[in-house]
This record gives sequence, structure tokens and C-alpha cells, in this order.
Amino acid sequence: MSETEPTKVQESLQEILQQVIELLSKHQLVEGLVHKQDMTRHDLVETLVHKQHLIELQKKLDQLHSADIAYIIEALPLEQRQLVWDMVNVERDGDILLEVSDAVRESLIASMDSGELLAAAEQLDTDEIADLAPDLPHDVMQELLESLDSQNRAHLQSAMSYPEDTVGSLMDFDMISIRDDIGLEVVLRYLRRLGELPGHTDKLFVVDRKDHFRGVLSLKRLLVHDPEASVAAVMAEDAVTFHPDDEAGEAASAFERYDLVSAPVVDRNNKLVGRLTVDVMMDFIREESDSEKLSMVGLREEEDLFTTVWKAAKNRWLWLAINLCTALVASRVVGAFEGSIEKLAALAALMPIVAGMGGNSGNQTSTLVVRGFALGLINKDNARRILTKELGIALLNGTVWGSVMGVVTYLLYHNAALGGVMAAAMLLNLLVAAVAGYLAPAMIDRLGRDPAYGSAVLTTFITDSMGFFIFLGLATVVLL
Amino acid sequence: MSETEPTKVQESLQEILQQVIELLSKHQLVEGLVHKQDMTRHDLVETLVHKQHLIELQKKLDQLHSADIAYIIEALPLEQRQLVWDMVNVERDGDILLEVSDAVRESLIASMDSGELLAAAEQLDTDEIADLAPDLPHDVMQELLESLDSQNRAHLQSAMSYPEDTVGSLMDFDMISIRDDIGLEVVLRYLRRLGELPGHTDKLFVVDRKDHFRGVLSLKRLLVHDPEASVAAVMAEDAVTFHPDDEAGEAASAFERYDLVSAPVVDRNNKLVGRLTVDVMMDFIREESDSEKLSMVGLREEEDLFTTVWKAAKNRWLWLAINLCTALVASRVVGAFEGSIEKLAALAALMPIVAGMGGNSGNQTSTLVVRGFALGLINKDNARRILTKELGIALLNGTVWGSVMGVVTYLLYHNAALGGVMAAAMLLNLLVAAVAGYLAPAMIDRLGRDPAYGSAVLTTFITDSMGFFIFLGLATVVLL
Repeated sequence: MSETEPTKVQESLQEILQQVIELLSKHQLVEGLVHKQDMTRHDLVETLVHKQHLIELQKKLDQLHSADIAYIIEALPLEQRQLVWDMVNVERDGDILLEVSDAVRESLIASMDSGELLAAAEQLDTDEIADLAPDLPHDVMQELLESLDSQNRAHLQSAMSYPEDTVGSLMDFDMISIRDDIGLEVVLRYLRRLGELPGHTDKLFVVDRKDHFRGVLSLKRLLVHDPEASVAAVMAEDAVTFHPDDEAGEAASAFERYDLVSAPVVDRNNKLVGRLTVDVMMDFIREESDSEKLSMVGLREEEDLFTTVWKAAKNRWLWLAINLCTALVASRVVGAFEGSIEKLAALAALMPIVAGMGGNSGNQTSTLVVRGFALGLINKDNARRILTKELGIALLNGTVWGSVMGVVTYLLYHNAALGGVMAAAMLLNLLVAAVAGYLAPAMIDRLGRDPAYGSAVLTTFITDSMGFFIFLGLATVVLL
Repeated sequence: MSETEPTKVQESLQEILQQVIELLSKHQLVEGLVHKQDMTRHDLVETLVHKQHLIELQKKLDQLHSADIAYIIEALPLEQRQLVWDMVNVERDGDILLEVSDAVRESLIASMDSGELLAAAEQLDTDEIADLAPDLPHDVMQELLESLDSQNRAHLQSAMSYPEDTVGSLMDFDMISIRDDIGLEVVLRYLRRLGELPGHTDKLFVVDRKDHFRGVLSLKRLLVHDPEASVAAVMAEDAVTFHPDDEAGEAASAFERYDLVSAPVVDRNNKLVGRLTVDVMMDFIREESDSEKLSMVGLREEEDLFTTVWKAAKNRWLWLAINLCTALVASRVVGAFEGSIEKLAALAALMPIVAGMGGNSGNQTSTLVVRGFALGLINKDNARRILTKELGIALLNGTVWGSVMGVVTYLLYHNAALGGVMAAAMLLNLLVAAVAGYLAPAMIDRLGRDPAYGSAVLTTFITDSMGFFIFLGLATVVLL
């Protein structure tokens, strides 16, 4: 945590944002005056009065926690954002860049020159620089690497060498390690000499003479045990450890499961190489769940709310293109029955209901199945059971809602046979939806991909096309 | 964290699950034999051999962390689940009940009698009992309350008095508070006398003589400062604090923002009443994001994967009913144009494309706007800007994809006017989608509800109905 006072809650954060916006808009008013050619005496006075606003703004920003400035920057349109960003003390640029979302970070970095970027990055730890690295220009990274001492350079290179979403890419190097053959008294003296402990230090990592990881000594234990005792006697040997190649998602769920605050990362030879902390894991969980939510509507990455139309459109195109293709295929299914529709136009009005109900029901199934895969709850032993249950639910729902729609159809069109077709088609399509809602994520999982991405579009595609086909096909056979 | 060794990662957890399933299925095989009337000598031997499996299973369960047993229980179908649950040491029942999902918890509690429930609950802290309280039978809660001493009873009643999703309902009472007028040496002695510190104690809470909150003393500072110093000199006064009535979501985002491990909860008079810890906040974030994902497909609560068909169907009905209603309205829009469709059946095949593309595009907008509201990034100053940007994107996308579909329509039907109508309808419906995708969450937010719930269904309803209306209306005017 930074030394500046964090703002208490978001409520008051929004108030601060309001104040910033007011100061900014007063400032911009004056900017407008300054650019006028014929400045009157009155305008000049106004300018001087309003200079005050900028100073006030500067003071406000200096008091805020970096995370809070990041929030304000995200909430401001591009030109005001740039004003605030230029006003921030350069020493805090690095911290703020780490806090803002990827999309906003890109736009802020684009506005900085190499010198500013270098100055910002130099304030950061090596694991933090590694987080920024993908967005930094090549020459800045080169200069940065050269400016580091050999240990930090090795850390940075190691942090950058791990693929995204592995433990290695999320670990830091701020661990305190102690030897197992010393006494607690010595540990206490050592800590006092350090003067300050890194954030999220809830335990010290114990290693042997050869730097092999042996166990952990929590600060809590250190505090309550007799200083005469030895580290080996007080430490816990059954600590949860991670490897740099472990998936970050697995590590995050272990942090949740076992309520960890920090945990050691060891290599294949059991050598201590870094540590994971709960704040990083919490950010990871939030980002994962955000990205899943965005991907459900085909947003490949989070979008800066104030980005340009062009950038936003690019982010959304692929999805619209995919959906246009699936909609076209479904449309061709309908096209095959144009003859039937000409004879009975009511079919055109009713067919979207069959398709839509299938889509809704299928996506309920697929959402639960996706969740089951994510939690590791589905395996070959219970897969058949889950599918059977989903088919049972579809049978029940299909009978109920199919009957309802059958009656409604009869009331609307006074055609009993049409009502019967409607009811039967609803039931059949809900059964199709149950199978599709199960098979779509199962197939994507089998292909080694994350079912959270793509299951919905695949399920909807099947229920749409099959819904049209079943309803129009049945109608053609029975009614015409 | 419990004393039992936590399993390292989920990979190996799934292996353990496999072993449990094997042991269980062998056991059930034997159960089948026992119920046979004419047991042969060979069957008897089998029975004895397989008794071993149960003992082995019991041993395995005893070694596992409660969170890991919870995972295994969730992954097992109902009858096997009951077997494992009965086998778990009764002292751990409470911990496991806290770890499993709400739906599974309900089914486990339903299988226990009052005596078992009482025994399980008595192993828990008061804040944990409060979490279980809504699921416990009234008589068990009564007996529990009577069995507690007055301080714990007051804690339990206070924890239960706060509405769900407030800080008060999530706080615990495991804080260690110290007076500000003593020296660090005294604090160190006090901690040693305590012998053990509660989980997630990264700081001590400092109070004055009248129990008013003054600041925090982190264990890190306690360790590195001279024991001769006084608490008042070393503590930090600018700690983030919460009130019991604060929204849990705000507190969770403060934990993320300021990287907190624990934080004091104080009442209106600045008296210390409890504390929040990061593990609880992390669970809260996970549950919130899960419930948002589930609610997007209308699942009111998470579903036990192995629940009965009847229970699951009830959970899904409301959504299907709502969607049936909106689909019916959209269907009536189409019905109004049945005359046009009779004359040109191609309209029926093309209309779902216009509606579907509008839905996809509108939900991209609404997802981003919902997110903007959740993060507090949208306010009256920038609302118009965001809407303008969305309209710009819709104009661009509508022109591009409208033209593509116009050409495709012409190629399919050799009807230039129909192609033109298609292109125009796509463009118009994407503009409608941009407005709907913005207004739907904005309206829900204005009503004081969470836009995460309901925005999608409202947006889709508008884009469907308007898509049909615009396309069929244009076609009727231009073509017929």
C-alpha cells in the first residue's frame, strides 16, 4: 500500500470525481478565453482567478491514492484525462499505469515519450515492470534492462519468460527467506535490521543451506513463540507451494480454498524462486470473471469507455461477423420452407418463439455445464447423469410451456392442428436445447479450450436452426 | 486455515476424487450383494474384502482439508454424496457446510437431525453460525442461542441483524485490540500469552480508554520497531475503516484497491465492532460474479449439479416465462405483417437476421454500460458522450454489415429493392440497439436496481420487436 491516504469508500470517490470534473471544466472555460485573440481586462482577471483551480486540482491529486487516481482517469473523457495525467507527479505514473485497465493503459502510454516512460518504470519493482512490458516500446525495455543490476535483470527476464496466466507471470520477488538452523531470536533481530517488510508478508520462507525450500514461518507463530526456540521447531512444513508453470487459475482457487495471504513459488528442484500474494490473486479473479462476462457478448477485450469509434468497432466486428454467419445459416433453413410460409403466414410469426425458447433454455444448461467444467465437478462418471437430468428438466419444461403455447396459438389462430404442432415443436426443441447445452461446452472442453468462450454462440446456433427446422418441418408435414 | 494438510492443486484434487469414486463404487457393489437374500460363501468373502475399501476411504477423508471434502461432495451424485457425508467426522461438519455452495448445503442440512446440526454448529465461530443461520431449523437456532455465553450471543445476534450484502453480515469478531498508551514490549508479551492469533491477523486494532478506534498497528511494524517505543508512536492513524451498514461490494472494491488483508469495522460512534478479512472479501467477489453470470440466463440461484429435475425446473421457470411473454409480443409484431409475408415469403427468412444482429450489437453496448455503472465510471457529465460514441459505432457497423447483408440478399433473391430494404433495416436496428443497450441499464440503475440483472432481457426484447417492425414495415412500404 502506498503512503498516501486511501479514500474511504467509493461513495466519496465519486464525490471527488465530481470535484475534479468541476475544476477541469472551469479550467477549460479559461483555456477557451486564453485562445481568444482579443482578451479583455475582465478576461485576464478571470484567467488569474481560475489558475487557482488548477493548483487546487493538483493538491487534490497529490493527496489521493494511486488506485483512486486511476479510477478518476478511467472515468474522464480523453482530453480531460490527458490533462489530469499530465498533472500527476511523474513518480506515481508507474503505480497508476499498473492500476488502470489494459485499454486505458495503452492510451496513456501512447501519450508518453521514452524519457517519461523510463522514469515511470524505474519507480517499479521488477515483477511490476514485467506486467507493463508488453505495452512498452522496444527501446524503452532495452534501456530499462541495461539500467538494472544483474539480480534485478535476471528477475525481470524470468518474470517475462513465463506465459500469461501462469504462476510465473504473477509472482513477485519480495519474499524474505531465512535459514532453518537459526533461532527465532536471530530472526527477530534480522527483521528489525531490515527496517521494513514487503507488503503482504504474513510468513517468512524457510530454506536450508542449499537454498531448498523447507517450510514457512508465519509472523503469527514468530510472535507467540519463545524466542529461544529454533526456526526448524516452530515452522510449518506442510505449506501450500506452487510451481512457476502452474496455471494461475488453479493457484487462485487454491488461495480461495485455503485462505492464503502469501505462498512460496518453488522450481522443479524445490528451490525458492518467488512468491504469490492474495492481492494479485484477487485481481486475477476479477479480471478473469470480467473477461468471461465480456466474451459472452463477443468483446475480445475490455473497452475504454471513451475510446474512439474506430477502435471500439474493431473490437466488436469479429463477433458480429460470426453471428451474421450463423444467422444466415438459420435463415437458409427458413428459406427451405418458403413454400409453406406462403400458404400459412402464421408460421413466420410463431417460429421465432420456438427458436427463442430453445435458445434460452439451452443457455441455462450450457451456463451450468460451463461452470461445472470450470470447478472440475464434471467427469466421465457423472456426465451421463447430468445429461439425463437436463433432458428430464427439458421434458418437464417442454410439456408445460409447450402446452401453454399450444393453447395460446389455438386462441390466436383458431387452428387446433397448428396449436398441436406448436406444442410438439416446443417440446422437441427444448430437448434439442438440453443436448446442445451439454454437448457444446463438453466438446469445447474436449478440444482443450475453455468452455466459457464459445459455448453460448454454439448452443444458440443449434437451437435457432433446429427450432426453425422442427417447427416448419412438422407444420409442413401435418398441416399442408 | 485448518490443521489438516491442504491438497496442493486442483489437478491432484481431481485424482483424489477419482479414487473416492472408485472406492465408493466398489462399496456399492458389495451393498448390492448384502441385500441379496441368498448370500453365498463367496459373496461373504467379497464383503469382508470390500469393508477394507470403506476404511481406506475414511482414512483418505480424514487427511483432507475441509474445502477439499466440500469439493468432493459437490462433485458426487446424491446417494454417493450422502455416503461420504455420513463418513465425515462430525467435528468437521460445520466447516464443510460453510465451504459448499448454498444449494448443496441445503440438501446436506436436510439430511441431518437437530442433534447433528447442533453438534456441527457448536464447532463454529459466531460469525460463521450467522452464515448458516438462514438454513438452520428454528429450534436448532434457539438451542444454539441458549448454549452461547452472553458475549457470543450478542455477537451472533448482531451478525444476524444486518441485511445480506452489508459489511455487518460479513464481519467477524476475531480482532485483537490493544490500548494506545502502552509500549510495544507489552504488546509482544500480551501476544505471547495469547498463544495463538486468529487467521488473517496482519494488524492489531488500537483503541483508547473508551474503546474508540484510534488506528492500526501492523505486525510488520510491530516486528521491526524498537520494543521500547509506544503503540501511539508506531501505529498508523490513516487506516481504512468500514461501517457495518456499508455495502459489501464497496468494501470488496476497497480491499482490491488498497490491497488490504484485514480492516476494522467501527460503528457511528467510532467504536470498534468487528473486522473484515480478505478471504471473506474474495469469496464475496467470486459469489457476486457467479451470480451475475447465472442471472444472465435467468438462473435465480446456483443449482446443485445433481439436484432433482423438479427443483431445477422451478429455478428456471420464471426466466422461461418472461421470455415467452417477450417472444409473444415480438410474434404479434410479425403477425401484424402476415399479409406482406404471404406475398413475399423471403421476408420470413430474412427477418430473424435483422433482429438477431440488433440483439448481438445491443448486448455488446449494454454489457459495457452495465460494467461502467458497476465501476462508477458513468455519471451525468459523460453519459451523453458514451451514448454518442455508441451511436457512432452502430452507424459504422450498421453501414458495413448492412451493406454486406444487402449484397447477400440480392445474390440470394435477385431482388435489388429487397437488398436495399435489408441494408436499411440492419442499419436502423443497430442504431436502435445502441440506444436500447444504453437506456436499458441506465433506466434500471435510475430505479435503484443493479443493472447487471435484467439489462440483457430488456435490450433483446427491444431489438427483437423493433427489428421485426423496421424490416417488415420498410418492406411493406417499399416493396408491396
